[in-house]
Amino acid sequence: MSLLVVGSVALDTLQTPFGRADDVLGGSAVFFAAAASFFHGVHVVGVVGDDYPTDQLGFLAARGVDLSGVEQVPGESFRWSGVYSFDMNSRETLDTRLGVFADFSPRIPEACRDAEWVFLGNIDPLLQLDVLDQIERPRFVACDTMNYWIESKRDDLLRLLGKVDLLMVNDSEARELSGDFNLARAAKWIQARGPKYLVIKKGEHGAILFTPEHVFFAPGYPLEEVFDPTGAGDAFAGGFMGHLAQAGRMEDGDLRRAVMFGSVLGSFACERFSVDRLKDLTAEEIEERVRQFREMTVFELEVAETARV
Amino acid sequence: MSLLVVGSVALDTLQTPFGRADDVLGGSAVFFAAAASFFHGVHVVGVVGDDYPTDQLGFLAARGVDLSGVEQVPGESFRWSGVYSFDMNSRETLDTRLGVFADFSPRIPEACRDAEWVFLGNIDPLLQLDVLDQIERPRFVACDTMNYWIESKRDDLLRLLGKVDLLMVNDSEARELSGDFNLARAAKWIQARGPKYLVIKKGEHGAILFTPEHVFFAPGYPLEEVFDPTGAGDAFAGGFMGHLAQAGRMEDGDLRRAVMFGSVLGSFACERFSVDRLKDLTAEEIEERVRQFREMTVFELEVAETARV
Repeated sequence: MSLLVVGSVALDTLQTPFGRADDVLGGSAVFFAAAASFFHGVHVVGVVGDDYPTDQLGFLAARGVDLSGVEQVPGESFRWSGVYSFDMNSRETLDTRLGVFADFSPRIPEACRDAEWVFLGNIDPLLQLDVLDQIERPRFVACDTMNYWIESKRDDLLRLLGKVDLLMVNDSEARELSGDFNLARAAKWIQARGPKYLVIKKGEHGAILFTPEHVFFAPGYPLEEVFDPTGAGDAFAGGFMGHLAQAGRMEDGDLRRAVMFGSVLGSFACERFSVDRLKDLTAEEIEERVRQFREMTVFELEVAETARV
Repeated sequence: MSLLVVGSVALDTLQTPFGRADDVLGGSAVFFAAAASFFHGVHVVGVVGDDYPTDQLGFLAARGVDLSGVEQVPGESFRWSGVYSFDMNSRETLDTRLGVFADFSPRIPEACRDAEWVFLGNIDPLLQLDVLDQIERPRFVACDTMNYWIESKRDDLLRLLGKVDLLMVNDSEARELSGDFNLARAAKWIQARGPKYLVIKKGEHGAILFTPEHVFFAPGYPLEEVFDPTGAGDAFAGGFMGHLAQAGRMEDGDLRRAVMFGSVLGSFACERFSVDRLKDLTAEEIEERVRQFREMTVFELEVAETARV
């Protein structure tokens, strides 16, 4: 029942209205693993340069994350730096230095080739396809992508979509990929290209799960302080896939809960810089917030008869 | 248990990607009454010019809407015209002619002064205050407003907020009123100024109800064709207040259901021009869509034990 993530292991430098952080832990695989490890063991495949503070990943190892698939090679680690707007709703990338990530060609360790639950972080669709070729018989494959690949590697991405169970993107990516501004129609378009399931993340507006039979909505958690939204989408993916791997199945109820756990982990990720909040987070806090989500969405269909006029 | 709405009765001319409609029924009170009448009788107070096609309001009268408070005076009716963008997410006002609405000074008919449920549509806060002075002892007062009043009549609006139970605005209005881009904080700010309850409408992203104890989220209905969103917010208000008046109480469960009925009526309003969809809508269709909303948001907290790995 192992869970595998392939993605970036990076160093972020960012400025928000709340302050600045330099060369802190970042990358899709790091956020994913930090979130998923609350639910299940995780194998991480990625690459870092010889400048990477690998000791800082110790908290992941302590939680049962297998980092042996993170190759360390000579050169500089992937670095991203950006600045968030005052209202946190937009960000500007100041610098992207791919470093050793530019030549990343994921090699799945022998021990992970029987992974059942696979998350392909946002990398070149050709590499995502290559990873799939290395996995023997995955039970559930989810992938992320971004506008850059939608524009530059559209054909490869469409080929990938034919081979995954779930695509997880944000609303602007779903619109760009499908060429349709209407999300309900965009979802149909995407599902017709392969993925049985689709999750569209809408930031503060929550997330939507599309299955062949249902549409399921999770609201955004009403945080009073969005300290740093970097990595929230990857933490969402980690909570989502971690829950499925833990449940060991993907029935409708499991997928709905997975969306809620994704939303919970994504919301916690925003509360501090980098993965800091995910470091001291507890299982009790996660469960409490899932209960809050339920409280925020539950309603009864029937009015008590006495209330009728 | 009577329900009163005070607002505009207008004629709209609009262009959407789906076509054009000229001088069709519009105005907050008309959309409100068309939606609320599925749940409860409604008294409408408004004003029209001698050019208004009052016969077209016959479908409301047939549903038990009392239009005797709609004064007809010499002059032109309120006319609005606008054009929607290709993606329906923005609209441009081409022309606003207030006509007789410019001198609107609502006079609440004797028979409506004992109204228990009152909705103050988007008009000058001074007029909204004046209406409240004419109501003997309302049980529940909700009001709408808009950026124009937030900017030009801020003090009067704040005075009004001290006298209403619920404010219903869209997200940009909540942000502008509170001066806070964070909706969770904006809600606290607004609730501290008087309204015990607050509904923030977010268009395709749904709506949020804030009570003193809870936050409740309703998703946007995933319409594949948003034909004409004009009046959706007023139809929401009508569904919301109509349900409360019908229930005859405003406990937490009633308010949550009211938000769902509001969302349902708002979504139907978008399916055709003007109030056209609300004309042939049936109680069964409303109930079916509320069930769909429940299906789209419900999830169980617990995983069956057998599912644990």
